[in-house]
Amino acid sequence: MKTEVGVSMAPKVLVHGSGAIGSIYAYLLLKAGCEVAAVCRSNYQVAKKAGFHISSALYGNDIHIQPTVVRSPDEAASTRQTFDYVLVCCKALPETHTAEIIAPVIVDGQTAIVLIQNGIDIEKEYNDRFPNNTLVSCVAYLPVTQTSPGHISMGNMEKLEVGLCPSSDHEKLEARGSAERLVELLRSAGGNAAYHDNIQERRWQKLLLNASWNPMCALTMSRDVALLASTATTEDPDFAEDTVRAVMNEVVEISQALGYTSVNREAAVRVMQIAKARVGGQGIEPSMLVDALEQRRMEVEVILGNPTRTARRLGIAVPRLELLYMLSKALDEANRWRQAGKSVGGEDLKRKDGT
Amino acid sequence: MKTEVGVSMAPKVLVHGSGAIGSIYAYLLLKAGCEVAAVCRSNYQVAKKAGFHISSALYGNDIHIQPTVVRSPDEAASTRQTFDYVLVCCKALPETHTAEIIAPVIVDGQTAIVLIQNGIDIEKEYNDRFPNNTLVSCVAYLPVTQTSPGHISMGNMEKLEVGLCPSSDHEKLEARGSAERLVELLRSAGGNAAYHDNIQERRWQKLLLNASWNPMCALTMSRDVALLASTATTEDPDFAEDTVRAVMNEVVEISQALGYTSVNREAAVRVMQIAKARVGGQGIEPSMLVDALEQRRMEVEVILGNPTRTARRLGIAVPRLELLYMLSKALDEANRWRQAGKSVGGEDLKRKDGT
Repeated sequence: MKTEVGVSMAPKVLVHGSGAIGSIYAYLLLKAGCEVAAVCRSNYQVAKKAGFHISSALYGNDIHIQPTVVRSPDEAASTRQTFDYVLVCCKALPETHTAEIIAPVIVDGQTAIVLIQNGIDIEKEYNDRFPNNTLVSCVAYLPVTQTSPGHISMGNMEKLEVGLCPSSDHEKLEARGSAERLVELLRSAGGNAAYHDNIQERRWQKLLLNASWNPMCALTMSRDVALLASTATTEDPDFAEDTVRAVMNEVVEISQALGYTSVNREAAVRVMQIAKARVGGQGIEPSMLVDALEQRRMEVEVILGNPTRTARRLGIAVPRLELLYMLSKALDEANRWRQAGKSVGGEDLKRKDGT
Repeated sequence: MKTEVGVSMAPKVLVHGSGAIGSIYAYLLLKAGCEVAAVCRSNYQVAKKAGFHISSALYGNDIHIQPTVVRSPDEAASTRQTFDYVLVCCKALPETHTAEIIAPVIVDGQTAIVLIQNGIDIEKEYNDRFPNNTLVSCVAYLPVTQTSPGHISMGNMEKLEVGLCPSSDHEKLEARGSAERLVELLRSAGGNAAYHDNIQERRWQKLLLNASWNPMCALTMSRDVALLASTATTEDPDFAEDTVRAVMNEVVEISQALGYTSVNREAAVRVMQIAKARVGGQGIEPSMLVDALEQRRMEVEVILGNPTRTARRLGIAVPRLELLYMLSKALDEANRWRQAGKSVGGEDLKRKDGT
């Protein structure tokens, strides 16, 4: 009986979107004793056959994990398992309709949905679609890339800020228990997770980083340190740094208007220091830059569109964020249709897939 | 004697930088009866052997010209000719030091130097180096590209605004005579040239176009109509247009502070209309976009750097122009050193040519 009880009590987790971020949380939750299934798309064949190989400065250079690999939540549902947690680790793109895609594995009032994604206002489609389920909203600080299908390379940092959406669910015992249990599982495996009462404030805090470096690096095809260096030879050596910080300060203004007092100018200075500390090295490629280089979709709406619309609603002038939003949107659209070495002209804008 | 006098009176012209723009003015001045020599670099071999082939919706589709072709002003000087005009049609890049390069063909107090280039504050190095020579400063509206070495494709528009720098040279009979003679020569050949008392105001007028579309198209790899279309599907269909116009209006604010009253919001609306009239067609590739696609240097300093510095000197806030300056500068730097499909990291920033 003991063994059987143990098995039945092991939390069951589905990781939806098992790229770089998803693989690390699959690893930690397997290590914590969970049963983990992973929804894989582009890396399905490799992951199904050989699992994931992780090289991490934090967790070790020779990690191999073999979760159950499926092609879709639909396929996961067909196994008739009931998942305690569904982690959403794919990109937050408006056209993806992920809430609908994961619906087959969500048991009403039971499965907790865990979003590990960047940006602002990403939760609505899940709250709308699953009003009786706990929605855990997380902010991850985790430098990691999938270097080839199933092969993950990670730096020496992992931090997960865990909260509830809506924030008022903090008062609900079951919802809070679900979030705190997730934190405990991750911590038991060596992860650096913490529960936060107001996860939205933490989202805006991360936006300081994402709304500035992400589009600026993508638009200029430069890593962060290259971006800082690019104008260092002009008469104003701090011009690039001042401009990046001016973008961050627009995020600060919106955050302050929303009452997120911790997202202030001092916080922006600290975020800038993180990049400046990398000067002399190669710097990093923010996710939007990686996407731009591979001509994949970028998370423009949740990182720039939603914050810009919030600013407009609040009557706050954000000329730099609006410009970055427009430019990123245009680059994103161009990257969909253009051939390398060519611009997007009017003719190329016809939808080649018929949509 | 008559013939000899005729020959000696034919103006002698050196065109420095015989790409798309330079070739068209070489054609018009040859047609006007001038003796024309062309300094060619990348297209030297082809132009030396076969001249230039021009296809123009305005002037005809099968034009062939064969100016004298040289590799450098130095080589032109070695022929012991005295040039009446030296047309500078190369890009205005700070590191080029064109005033020094053309020095061998400039006869003190005699040769008129004619700049046909975009941007602001491009004249100083010429006024400084040749204080006794007439400096003709021109703004060209001329959609033209060199499709392959020596082959030029031009649209159905050509307009050249001609003035003097400093503007006070308007009072000098000789300087003004030199500028007006150039206008007459071009007009005699069917060109659309006109003399303007204050060419700087015309430069700022063109900057409405150049400081907005140029960097925005280059950063997003989009033609102008694609840029306008890119955000047309969001809830705010005019977002892209409003953002482009907001950039133009920053140019307007600086212009107004400088006393250039004709560069106003109505002018910005008219400039926007030119691009909007292209919607439905393929649109155009501004020069910075062409440069970005070919990973060549862009005219960032004269189109964005100098205007931004002027704004700062005048105490005018231009957040969008500053952001576009910084981003264009970084993209320009990245395009120098990065390989296609890769970002510029710290290591790549080492000067591969040893400079």
